[in-house]
Amino acid sequence: MSKKDHVLEIDKRPDSLPQNSRREFFKKTAIYSASAISAASILAPITLKADEPEIMDLAEWGTKLGDRVDKYTYGVPSLYEHNNIRRVNDLLSSGDRYATVSMSPLHQQEGIITPNGLFFSRSHGGTAQIDPNKWRLMIHGLVEKPLVLTLQQLKRYPSESRIHFIECPANGSTGWRGPQFNNLQFVKGMMSCAEWTGVRLKTILDDLGLKPNAQWMLAEGSDNSEMARSIPVEKVLDDAMLVWGQNGEPLRPEQGYPVRLLLPGWEGNLNVKWIKRLEFAEKPWHSKEETSKYTMLQPSGKAIEFFWPMEVNSVITSPCPEVPWTDLKVGDWVEISGIAWSGRGTIKTVDISLDGGNNWTQASIKGLVLPKCWTRFSYIIKWDGKKKVLLSRAIDDSGHIQPTIDQLIKNVGVEGIYHRNPIIGWEVTKKGEVNNVHVRS
Amino acid sequence: MSKKDHVLEIDKRPDSLPQNSRREFFKKTAIYSASAISAASILAPITLKADEPEIMDLAEWGTKLGDRVDKYTYGVPSLYEHNNIRRVNDLLSSGDRYATVSMSPLHQQEGIITPNGLFFSRSHGGTAQIDPNKWRLMIHGLVEKPLVLTLQQLKRYPSESRIHFIECPANGSTGWRGPQFNNLQFVKGMMSCAEWTGVRLKTILDDLGLKPNAQWMLAEGSDNSEMARSIPVEKVLDDAMLVWGQNGEPLRPEQGYPVRLLLPGWEGNLNVKWIKRLEFAEKPWHSKEETSKYTMLQPSGKAIEFFWPMEVNSVITSPCPEVPWTDLKVGDWVEISGIAWSGRGTIKTVDISLDGGNNWTQASIKGLVLPKCWTRFSYIIKWDGKKKVLLSRAIDDSGHIQPTIDQLIKNVGVEGIYHRNPIIGWEVTKKGEVNNVHVRS
Repeated sequence: MSKKDHVLEIDKRPDSLPQNSRREFFKKTAIYSASAISAASILAPITLKADEPEIMDLAEWGTKLGDRVDKYTYGVPSLYEHNNIRRVNDLLSSGDRYATVSMSPLHQQEGIITPNGLFFSRSHGGTAQIDPNKWRLMIHGLVEKPLVLTLQQLKRYPSESRIHFIECPANGSTGWRGPQFNNLQFVKGMMSCAEWTGVRLKTILDDLGLKPNAQWMLAEGSDNSEMARSIPVEKVLDDAMLVWGQNGEPLRPEQGYPVRLLLPGWEGNLNVKWIKRLEFAEKPWHSKEETSKYTMLQPSGKAIEFFWPMEVNSVITSPCPEVPWTDLKVGDWVEISGIAWSGRGTIKTVDISLDGGNNWTQASIKGLVLPKCWTRFSYIIKWDGKKKVLLSRAIDDSGHIQPTIDQLIKNVGVEGIYHRNPIIGWEVTKKGEVNNVHVRS
Repeated sequence: MSKKDHVLEIDKRPDSLPQNSRREFFKKTAIYSASAISAASILAPITLKADEPEIMDLAEWGTKLGDRVDKYTYGVPSLYEHNNIRRVNDLLSSGDRYATVSMSPLHQQEGIITPNGLFFSRSHGGTAQIDPNKWRLMIHGLVEKPLVLTLQQLKRYPSESRIHFIECPANGSTGWRGPQFNNLQFVKGMMSCAEWTGVRLKTILDDLGLKPNAQWMLAEGSDNSEMARSIPVEKVLDDAMLVWGQNGEPLRPEQGYPVRLLLPGWEGNLNVKWIKRLEFAEKPWHSKEETSKYTMLQPSGKAIEFFWPMEVNSVITSPCPEVPWTDLKVGDWVEISGIAWSGRGTIKTVDISLDGGNNWTQASIKGLVLPKCWTRFSYIIKWDGKKKVLLSRAIDDSGHIQPTIDQLIKNVGVEGIYHRNPIIGWEVTKKGEVNNVHVRS
């Protein structure tokens, strides 16, 4: 495998901006030396380079009208952010670009909401483009009143909005079996987090009447792959939803427009997209996704067919290979921050190690703490210019603790690629470069 | 003024889809009659029309591969959602499309997060396109260590993420002085809500050292309008932030990319975009935005220069003129839902009236309840086919109550157009059509 497979290909266009004139150069150097001195007082001073452009007092955008306010009826990112995109890596797909996963740029993710344009996408047969006027949902089997719903009918049920992450069970499998990527996007980018709006399935079933012998629900997608999964009724009645809203607007096509199933905290593939049919029965269906795929291979060679919740997990997003500390000077204060999550409940604490796991200390939690949702953690240190191995370890309110690689191997072996939530190691070199390392303890 | 000014121009393209063949027509009618009967059991049954397209079991998207997963590295909405857009109305702008406001489609807003592409936008000189490598922020005046910051330096401060609404003080002024629009988007669309990520100004000032005699901060934008506002230091040290993140990604250009000031709960124009300079002094600056604009004209003819927090407010988003009840049948249960917010704190309760304010009953609050943030309310009724006038009235934890139109006129007169938060009236006709009416009590 070539090195190319392990690195992100960054579009270099932003560097091709016109160079500054010699006159401007002298303007700048004067200003920068002053700025560099005063900047030395702040938390993480960065020496300004003389080859940087002029300061904004001289910038052209202050001298002319900007774009018309109505230029974009639906807005787009700044052209300078064209590298903040989802990425596909063929090493992690079934070879074509239809059955594959497009990963979120977690190294550029702020807060706990993933913008819809960057929400990770996994498809088994491409992204279906569905006409909402033609879409129908059939609910049948062990219910008193089977029916077919239009989108308008579905939306007439009382709605709820909740913030939850969705994660592919293969997230974190890269480097476990397969290549060791040296970037965050390909190591942990098979997940995102959004505010979902829809109706609880319990609300619909209270209306339709679930028969007492109904133990399982089949969720079937309407795209060509006909994704089909068996869901225990306990989960359906607990917090399952049919969602049509994503971060304040209709679901995006790659998220199952017009309607997907949401099973908070459970494997991404169970959150069936482009949903068309819900059937209730006494036994599971053993669909192709439950036999040929998405099973937990054990050391014995046997596989566990149903393994639903995503484990307690965490990852440091700053620093990471794409966001190094190469700009830091010894003595600078710098924030270590990241994301923790659990499909089993709410994040309770996150521990940080600076020395590969010999010593641990508790990080602080930032912002909202919600169940089955991303939670932000933070820990501030003074950069001493010495090599470090940064680890984060999350603990949820169900009592689960994120394991080390060796603990995980001991529990589930090395054969499987799903539900790999080991502690991730970021080695920080003396120069502040960051590398993905496997810490075997 | 022509009727055209009062209505939204909806692009009719979605209707121009190919008609179904006669064969499909018969397929459908059979299925629809069955569907119509079973559908009659749900909360809000809708009789399906025979001219609707075939159900999805026969739909083409299940028979072929969808779009390649890597078709969009940055995703876009479904083509069927091309009417879910921001809109400009020249009656509400200074005549050109540079100094105007683009309003959010609140009638299609789900939950409390506004997607970045639909976040309302107000500009005084168009949208500046700023090169983040050239951007600088100067902090000077009554601080111990004045300096100039690069974006990279600013982002080295510890960050926070918080969900807050931003609202133009002119929101709700339509129909107050000027045309009475018969849609929600032009009546209340000068506001949106997002998760913002940045650094608290207090964190920066703790580092730079604020001199004891500093009482005011000037926030100046770098776009051609050089928006400049005087902010009391109490607010700066309370919860003011410099934000570079919006719903998980960099600020959008029309929101002030790369950095804007965030003053949670205060007038939108105070949240200065494309920020370039913060100066601290003993007295305010009386900028053009504080003298020629954004003042509160009083019945006396005098104006209040500084009037910052946005008042407690609420609006019913479903039903509304764009989202009528014309599909309901007598006896259907239907949800009345909407948004409440206050720049002074947290929403405590929301009351609903079905009869124009003669009787009030408390609505239920849905989802997250956060300070200076949108809060969702809900009230379910059985549709009786009788004319109604729906009102909502919000109360916040500072004790403020949303006023009626007459109460507001009594307090602040009719001259001003800012800070108009009267109770909005939606008349629902027997047919389920919804009209914007002024309830004078």
